[in-house]
Amino acid sequence: MDALFAAHRALLDDAVAATQARGHWSAFSESPRSYDAAAAPEAEAAFAALLNQPFALDQPSDGPGIGAETSPFGPALGISYPHADPVTLIAAARQAGERWAAAPVETRAGIAVEILVRLNRASFLIARSVEHTTGQAGPMAFQAGGPHAQDRGLEAVAYAYAELARIPGHVRWEKPAGRSVIKLDKEFHIVPRGIGLVIGCATFPTWNSYPAIFADLVTGNAVIVKPHPAAILPLALTVRIARTVLAEQGFDPNTILLAADSAEAPITRRLATDPAIGIVDFTGSPAFGQWLRDAVRGKPLFTEEAGVNTIVIDSTDAFAAMCQNIAFSLSLYSGQMCTAPQSIFVPASGIATDEGHKTFEEVAAGIAGAVGALLADPARAAGVLGAIQNPLTLTRIADARGLGRIVRDSAALPGTAARTATPLILAVRAEEETAYMQERFGPISFVIATAGSAESVALATRCAREHGAISAALYSTDAALTAHAALAHARAGVALSVNLTGGIYVNQSAAFSDYHVSGANPAGNACLTDAAFVTGRFNVVGVRRPAS
Amino acid sequence: MDALFAAHRALLDDAVAATQARGHWSAFSESPRSYDAAAAPEAEAAFAALLNQPFALDQPSDGPGIGAETSPFGPALGISYPHADPVTLIAAARQAGERWAAAPVETRAGIAVEILVRLNRASFLIARSVEHTTGQAGPMAFQAGGPHAQDRGLEAVAYAYAELARIPGHVRWEKPAGRSVIKLDKEFHIVPRGIGLVIGCATFPTWNSYPAIFADLVTGNAVIVKPHPAAILPLALTVRIARTVLAEQGFDPNTILLAADSAEAPITRRLATDPAIGIVDFTGSPAFGQWLRDAVRGKPLFTEEAGVNTIVIDSTDAFAAMCQNIAFSLSLYSGQMCTAPQSIFVPASGIATDEGHKTFEEVAAGIAGAVGALLADPARAAGVLGAIQNPLTLTRIADARGLGRIVRDSAALPGTAARTATPLILAVRAEEETAYMQERFGPISFVIATAGSAESVALATRCAREHGAISAALYSTDAALTAHAALAHARAGVALSVNLTGGIYVNQSAAFSDYHVSGANPAGNACLTDAAFVTGRFNVVGVRRPAS
Repeated sequence: MDALFAAHRALLDDAVAATQARGHWSAFSESPRSYDAAAAPEAEAAFAALLNQPFALDQPSDGPGIGAETSPFGPALGISYPHADPVTLIAAARQAGERWAAAPVETRAGIAVEILVRLNRASFLIARSVEHTTGQAGPMAFQAGGPHAQDRGLEAVAYAYAELARIPGHVRWEKPAGRSVIKLDKEFHIVPRGIGLVIGCATFPTWNSYPAIFADLVTGNAVIVKPHPAAILPLALTVRIARTVLAEQGFDPNTILLAADSAEAPITRRLATDPAIGIVDFTGSPAFGQWLRDAVRGKPLFTEEAGVNTIVIDSTDAFAAMCQNIAFSLSLYSGQMCTAPQSIFVPASGIATDEGHKTFEEVAAGIAGAVGALLADPARAAGVLGAIQNPLTLTRIADARGLGRIVRDSAALPGTAARTATPLILAVRAEEETAYMQERFGPISFVIATAGSAESVALATRCAREHGAISAALYSTDAALTAHAALAHARAGVALSVNLTGGIYVNQSAAFSDYHVSGANPAGNACLTDAAFVTGRFNVVGVRRPAS
Repeated sequence: MDALFAAHRALLDDAVAATQARGHWSAFSESPRSYDAAAAPEAEAAFAALLNQPFALDQPSDGPGIGAETSPFGPALGISYPHADPVTLIAAARQAGERWAAAPVETRAGIAVEILVRLNRASFLIARSVEHTTGQAGPMAFQAGGPHAQDRGLEAVAYAYAELARIPGHVRWEKPAGRSVIKLDKEFHIVPRGIGLVIGCATFPTWNSYPAIFADLVTGNAVIVKPHPAAILPLALTVRIARTVLAEQGFDPNTILLAADSAEAPITRRLATDPAIGIVDFTGSPAFGQWLRDAVRGKPLFTEEAGVNTIVIDSTDAFAAMCQNIAFSLSLYSGQMCTAPQSIFVPASGIATDEGHKTFEEVAAGIAGAVGALLADPARAAGVLGAIQNPLTLTRIADARGLGRIVRDSAALPGTAARTATPLILAVRAEEETAYMQERFGPISFVIATAGSAESVALATRCAREHGAISAALYSTDAALTAHAALAHARAGVALSVNLTGGIYVNQSAAFSDYHVSGANPAGNACLTDAAFVTGRFNVVGVRRPAS
């Protein structure tokens, strides 16, 4: 069975090295052009064939299938998924997990990489499924839902494999004792924690779930994948591919199971509190995160929740490029990324730029104007904005209009059946904290007038410490302020991007280089991916006996 | 400041290698003879000088000192320690922690090793302090309280340093983008979680606390050490030495603080729930462990609580040696080790041995007889048993007498002012679970008649799964049963020792080789020491900017 490990060993070794080098490295190409030319049209046909059908997944089920996904671009998907009681799923996972836990680490790692390689081959189909559940535009759904998610999964495989590989299977222990030597043979067993429950989200169903799924698998745990009811298909495709590889390799495919549910009859709480669940990974709201913290005590619980991402604008030597860069970050996927900026701090007295002094108003207008320019062409706008995943986000935008002075209003894109909304930008004063110092998910942002950059940094980092933040940006030509801000943001546990212009954005988090979510503020305790993300998923137990 | 890192680098590298090789390795000699001949008598004088005095420790204090330690060997120590409100201690630790967090990893690791080297030089004095607080006999107090504890501390330093050293400080990220290359300079900040609270126990104040203290320090956290009111002195000496080294190296000595309290006015709950406390390590009762799990949510909490350690006797080719080995394990420190066996499973039909078939009664009598022989000489008995740390243990012994048929009764050692009790051994049937399937701390053990070894293994591993266990032993000449038992114990998360005879005992857990507490059963979630014990104590936060 270790043929897969041998086949993928070079890739795995490179991945482990990349987690430590942390320069640019990627296993799966983000360029659609580097894939087989037939892949895209084949995926198109395959996606069409999935619609309005029961989804073929040969796992335990009881009664009629469930599923009510509707594309944010318009049509209902009409796909139904197998339904099973949590008790049934857990029993199946427990039984399958026995053999999986006993498999050598190399076998599990080899299978995990093979699953990722198969997922990579299915990238176009998964992209379509991500597009029509999350509302991501096609190009982004391909990159973020396909190769970038696969890279994050491989990163977790690499971390888990590296930690496990450091633990020897057998050792001889020889301790001098006077004139003799006490000799023991010791063996060390890797003991997984049981079943991992991975609770997916509706905006990045694959990217946010793959690290946990693969960390659980490589450390020997069976996995139950509980997708968001609005974004089941991408994880159903994932689970089906994983089950195929497991079965091919002689393992019980129930080592990974899909636990589809509906908004009307959710099963997450029952799953999470079952004693057989040993680990919980969750991406979603702070309210449910808190429920999990209260309910799941004494077990590893990894969360990514919410945050108030910030930008501090102090000064710039590239005003137009700065405004363009921020405009793209505000517009990309309509501000529905967990890394999208929301609260932009600018001195009330304005800033120094390469175009001379700019007033607060001019900075706000510069960003708003850049958004307008970016979205002026409807086709380009649709490709940047995608669609709004959840109708409640439109309500949130409507409610937010009263929170400040409107610098740029939000509007639907014309001539489309998709649920769309362009960025809403509001101007407020620093003291209006209730407006901007809480997460307002979606294309809603604030330009906040502060007493100066010192206050801007203080407010931005307080946002992170008190309400969580995953990304932050700074624009400054002042080396001393930059050094101060870098340290302050690091202490607040939020990754900082300084003076980004051109084709790199604060929203982007690169696998094998950027730590996504530090774990050091309320935005979440899980990092994708660091050693702490994997080491809690297993224990080591020794057996020792006199050497023979 | 990195002179200490340079001075200790070879030792640290060896320690890191030892954590992965896991053969026998030790940095600090366990043999008193290998230390300077003057050290022991000097320590004797130094210990006498500490008695009936305020303990000199220049840390924040308010009002009169506190302390009411009494040696289990007789005399009150009469030492008082600085007292301060938790708010005062936390404020001091926060302030000191700022600089400590900003120090390079190498600086912190160098200082940590230097502290351990100084502690090693103080081993004789610390041994005396351990002896007269815990009741450990002198030789054990030296080994377990001195060099073995220092080795465990160094092991934590090695794990923490290795994990941190894998994270690069600066990298260049270069991503091809069409015909150009996006270049970012990235720096990665290690962000500690705040202040570590280390809650010590009364039986192994140094051995059980050093791993947490040193893991916290190396990962950049300030530490507040909250000793058990009955065993303050060993940790007061430890904190004083650590503060001296920190001050010598230009750091605020409040990076480590002693938080002495009294049984009448405990401060642990107030400390543990303060928001500034980022990590809690605890050795003690399951009841307080559960309180901590309920009170300290969303923060790393590492515990070692209680367990029911077991021995399964299936068969042996060395009956007398087996009985002697078990007798020593039951007697050493009067069964007050967290690794001491309690529940011994023997088939009711007896076992095969090198001396022919032995009935259940003969096996029980063999163990009891070996205890009697071991303790026949009062001086030798005192050296093995030490004294009873807590008077409540005597009550527990008295109450336990009614739980089964007495195979060997407990008694005080004659002619001593010390609080002593020899092992109580009771015979019960397998179904009398209420007797033996809960921890009965102290020199209380049960020989349990089972339907056969399959039931013995099932009961022993159920003890571990349901009530926790840190150690387990098996005696068997049957290879198939041994393989089955090894896997079953591993799955139950309890380290197993097979067929130990001679000078190695199930109670012993060797730093750098044996994982102490697996984390995989209710005996505790913390392992001394594995990667999971250190990785949760810090986060990594990135700062990135266009390459200049």
